[in-house]
Amino acid sequence: MIIAKTIQQVRDQVCAWKGAGQSIGLCPTMGYLHEGHASLMAASARLCDKTVASVFVNPIQFGPNEDLADYPRDFEHDRALLETEGVDLVFHPDADEMYAADFCTFVDIDVLSQTLCGKSRPIHFRGVCTVITKLLNIVGPDKIFFGQKDAQQLAIVRRMVRDLNFDVEVVGCPIVRESDGLAKSSRNTYLSVKERQAALILSRSVRLGQAMVAGGERRSEKLLAAMRGKLAGEPMAEVEYVEVVDGESMQPVDVFKPGDLVAMAVRIGTTRLIDNFTVGDPAIVIPEV
Amino acid sequence: MIIAKTIQQVRDQVCAWKGAGQSIGLCPTMGYLHEGHASLMAASARLCDKTVASVFVNPIQFGPNEDLADYPRDFEHDRALLETEGVDLVFHPDADEMYAADFCTFVDIDVLSQTLCGKSRPIHFRGVCTVITKLLNIVGPDKIFFGQKDAQQLAIVRRMVRDLNFDVEVVGCPIVRESDGLAKSSRNTYLSVKERQAALILSRSVRLGQAMVAGGERRSEKLLAAMRGKLAGEPMAEVEYVEVVDGESMQPVDVFKPGDLVAMAVRIGTTRLIDNFTVGDPAIVIPEV
Repeated sequence: MIIAKTIQQVRDQVCAWKGAGQSIGLCPTMGYLHEGHASLMAASARLCDKTVASVFVNPIQFGPNEDLADYPRDFEHDRALLETEGVDLVFHPDADEMYAADFCTFVDIDVLSQTLCGKSRPIHFRGVCTVITKLLNIVGPDKIFFGQKDAQQLAIVRRMVRDLNFDVEVVGCPIVRESDGLAKSSRNTYLSVKERQAALILSRSVRLGQAMVAGGERRSEKLLAAMRGKLAGEPMAEVEYVEVVDGESMQPVDVFKPGDLVAMAVRIGTTRLIDNFTVGDPAIVIPEV
Repeated sequence: MIIAKTIQQVRDQVCAWKGAGQSIGLCPTMGYLHEGHASLMAASARLCDKTVASVFVNPIQFGPNEDLADYPRDFEHDRALLETEGVDLVFHPDADEMYAADFCTFVDIDVLSQTLCGKSRPIHFRGVCTVITKLLNIVGPDKIFFGQKDAQQLAIVRRMVRDLNFDVEVVGCPIVRESDGLAKSSRNTYLSVKERQAALILSRSVRLGQAMVAGGERRSEKLLAAMRGKLAGEPMAEVEYVEVVDGESMQPVDVFKPGDLVAMAVRIGTTRLIDNFTVGDPAIVIPEV
């Protein structure tokens, strides 16, 4: 497995692979990898000849009061996981390789970025779109892989790729969960033992929502009332949002249809966690707990 | 010469050329082509195996009170010029091929876009960066060609390419002028006979500035006072700006150096014209008139 610190190293290696007719998959990550990330790399290894993963905590997607400095990092652990998953090249740049001191170009998206997480994180998706544009231009992959856990991010990247005509296929991969239902996240490491238990309220309310949809419910108001009621039962949970939105535009809908998204952000203590499910997605992945 | 109306046609043809090992030059234009555009295509034909030109009046770079509807168009004339210049493929899309009804992704640039033309045209460079990003992603050229007449646009595209890691070389081509000095522009067609004569005040003040620089002047204040004085001598000219800015950051400088830019925008009647020169550029291209 090649570890590249510079953009030029990545370009040279990918150019050689492409010259040999090999297809390229890209899995962008911020490191501190878990089985959710591993599932992206496994999908890439299955669908592409060569897999490139990036490990880069992207500073411009963190707001001034967010956890950039504290974001967990452990490159030695990541390297071992990447090797296990059959990644061919890891791009692990320093921040100044990615952002010159006078960096001033941003890719921004209207509409889709103004609901859900965009409300409390106003510059977040601008930072995501910008770094993904850079990675697409550096690697030039055939396919790029994202987790469905960051559902709004996935919808935004799909829209960005369409609007800006990137010649790449966006592949969304299912949420990977702990055995008790909690969605895997690098931020789970912030949770105390008590908070870890309280955090199950997210996946439990997802499970409740899935059951109501399976039972025929199509009215957002009814679904959300039940899910909010479930979340209110956990005193350590502070709900930021629970919403039902159109699967493409990320705008709230009154009556939902297959492909629409039911998403939430909830604080457990100081840790902000997200979870979601897609209406009509046949996989009920959360055990009844 | 191939005329492509769709993105897919362009991709298919360019893919075939690249597969045959041929290099690609891209000349983005809004049509109504003149010798300035022709010089870009000639440069591309000299430096690249295949030349792609786009002819597309990009709606998102026009403000609400600007001349989008009136912008001159004559595709039959353009087609003849493109053929003469040895262009291999013209991309001439309709607006809805480029912008879906729910298009919402933009590439924007701080700092460089806030001076000079950016002051009176606040969304202009966002529209330019966005359409150039799209064209770069559609064509994937080795080199992209711009005229030095739109000097701020050229600086912004260079910065965008650097910041977003587009794998393309930006080539700037010298201003092409009428025999009496007026910089070639599609907007010159708006000028009445009297205005056409008055418009010479732009190139005359450029010539004055060039002469002062050749004589050793390095103070922006002195240079600008003289150039503004010259422009004030033409009653039909309404000066929007004359400035000396750093050649990369587009920020005003008190003392200028080679590579810095002396630029102006002047209205003659309702027609907005621009002109400029780069400090230390050896070409004094304007005849003494």
